[in-house]
Amino acid sequence: MGMERRGKPPVVAIVGATGAVGVEMIGCLERRAFALESLRLYASARSAGKELEFRGTPLKVEELTEASFAGVDLALFSAGSAISKQFAPVAVRAGATVIDNSSAFRMDAEVPLVVPEINPQALRRHRGIIANPNCTAIISITPLWPVHRANRIVRLLIASYQSASGAGAAAMEELREATRAYLEGRPYEQRVMPHPYAFNVFSHNTRVDPVSGYNEEEIKVREEARKIFADPQLRVSATCIRVPVLRAHSVAITFECQRPIAAEEARRLIAGAPGVKLVDDRERNYFPMPRDASGGDAILAGRIRQDLSDPSGRSIALFVAGDQLLKGAALNAVQIAEALIAPGNG
Amino acid sequence: MGMERRGKPPVVAIVGATGAVGVEMIGCLERRAFALESLRLYASARSAGKELEFRGTPLKVEELTEASFAGVDLALFSAGSAISKQFAPVAVRAGATVIDNSSAFRMDAEVPLVVPEINPQALRRHRGIIANPNCTAIISITPLWPVHRANRIVRLLIASYQSASGAGAAAMEELREATRAYLEGRPYEQRVMPHPYAFNVFSHNTRVDPVSGYNEEEIKVREEARKIFADPQLRVSATCIRVPVLRAHSVAITFECQRPIAAEEARRLIAGAPGVKLVDDRERNYFPMPRDASGGDAILAGRIRQDLSDPSGRSIALFVAGDQLLKGAALNAVQIAEALIAPGNG
Repeated sequence: MGMERRGKPPVVAIVGATGAVGVEMIGCLERRAFALESLRLYASARSAGKELEFRGTPLKVEELTEASFAGVDLALFSAGSAISKQFAPVAVRAGATVIDNSSAFRMDAEVPLVVPEINPQALRRHRGIIANPNCTAIISITPLWPVHRANRIVRLLIASYQSASGAGAAAMEELREATRAYLEGRPYEQRVMPHPYAFNVFSHNTRVDPVSGYNEEEIKVREEARKIFADPQLRVSATCIRVPVLRAHSVAITFECQRPIAAEEARRLIAGAPGVKLVDDRERNYFPMPRDASGGDAILAGRIRQDLSDPSGRSIALFVAGDQLLKGAALNAVQIAEALIAPGNG
Repeated sequence: MGMERRGKPPVVAIVGATGAVGVEMIGCLERRAFALESLRLYASARSAGKELEFRGTPLKVEELTEASFAGVDLALFSAGSAISKQFAPVAVRAGATVIDNSSAFRMDAEVPLVVPEINPQALRRHRGIIANPNCTAIISITPLWPVHRANRIVRLLIASYQSASGAGAAAMEELREATRAYLEGRPYEQRVMPHPYAFNVFSHNTRVDPVSGYNEEEIKVREEARKIFADPQLRVSATCIRVPVLRAHSVAITFECQRPIAAEEARRLIAGAPGVKLVDDRERNYFPMPRDASGGDAILAGRIRQDLSDPSGRSIALFVAGDQLLKGAALNAVQIAEALIAPGNG
């Protein structure tokens, strides 16, 4: 954060405060008793004037302008790539450190891309902007980090079950409304998603690369996993799918290690991963579910078993679920802020 | 079928006629103008007396008893494994040929397990019972058969997005009711599924093997794919997941061939697979969806692309969707019946 204010609690700004992630950022700062001098909330002109509560006090949302960052030490951005590209450099010039939840700077070699449980050391070399990774990437790889350290993961195969929240509050509302209409036999014209969402699943609503056939979400998972693990050799293939779930992503993962690994060893390593909770009850058929992950900080991991299709014994299958708005976005951003102000990272 | 009646259209019985699959069996026989002398409908005592329409005529559902199969040439069973185990041998002794949709006989070495587009020749050696495969197995492997013939598939990785219908009509109703309750803020006590179904996904509701960690559905996919492909060496790993979708299963598939295969070649082979429709529009982001697969005979296949995590160029990723009640169950059973009476299979 702004070094000039070292020793004093920071002035914090949230850009995109009225969005699905922005609201959760406010909640995370409050719930985690984040030490700050003051909190400023910014959004588009359309949302300016709204009031949001922080620590029992209503705060008025202001319109984001180039002048918004005077005196701000730490700016949490979650208002889309275009806003981040335009305003993050403005915030940095005004002396703020930016934690950006958009994809705008994630693959910039000068910008750390951080999951605090994995690569907090990357924070040391930031130049004003720190990128918060893609939600599916965070939820997929956080449980795998201790495995990767013990027995390098060389290949990662992912099939996701992604919630509406990744496309914002309007998509969550569309899922509810489209489902209500379906159950009542009424037509519903979708406005946010490209396909009917009620009782349906569809390939992720990002542009598909015409050459490779991968969509942008899948490419993010691949590139960001490599950058966060600092392992450009990691081989990744993802299939990203939307499912009619409100706010937690689930992921079916198969990974291959450099050396053979027993399911028990993988389970022990994953169970010990910070930020991860093992939910792996074979007898009761109780495993990670988005319903249980929603509203919680932990990534749930289970169904950890040997991949029977790899006779070398180097592959493990598992299933994870994590709150897309919390660990997939707001919580991870606030954890980055906490790591920044922790002693030794100033 | 009963050889003694060769040349005359068969007397057909449906066991489990009032179930989700039974109703679709009646529909398939009608829609495909299946030549039959008469149709008899059987169910449990609880459902006996109900009337179901066939070709414009109401047929009364009778209670299934050991005497039900007198004069029956062809019996389509879809009333669960216990009923099949008890009554299929009775039907065979009465001279009927049984096409059984349960898992009771699928892995019996004497019982053909048939997808007519893949292994119709297996019908020649039946001894009265023919097994209809697991829905997820049918929907996953039917599109892959031409690939397997051209360039042997050695490894198959599957993550499924399975609908409520696989657990029967009551599960479909539970999904509707649980979702309605959720949207209205009412509590809902699930009666069919082991977990809340509204806006949730969960690991398949079959018993999990305590040693391997795979559930019965995943083991079926593995064993049945091997048997239908007549390839016991095929290496398969599946993760089977329920999603809040009513009646079509989707599957994210990655397969590895013996030799390198280009995505274009895989697409050409899959597009030519009987029973499969290519839905693979990268520009419009239009790919297989359960909404589009529901009520249709075709398995939709798309998102066909090189698996970037396999540098040998031997792996392909794709996404498929198929109606669980039709190609996943009733339609495949009726297609088996059609193949049985076709010239050359008598």
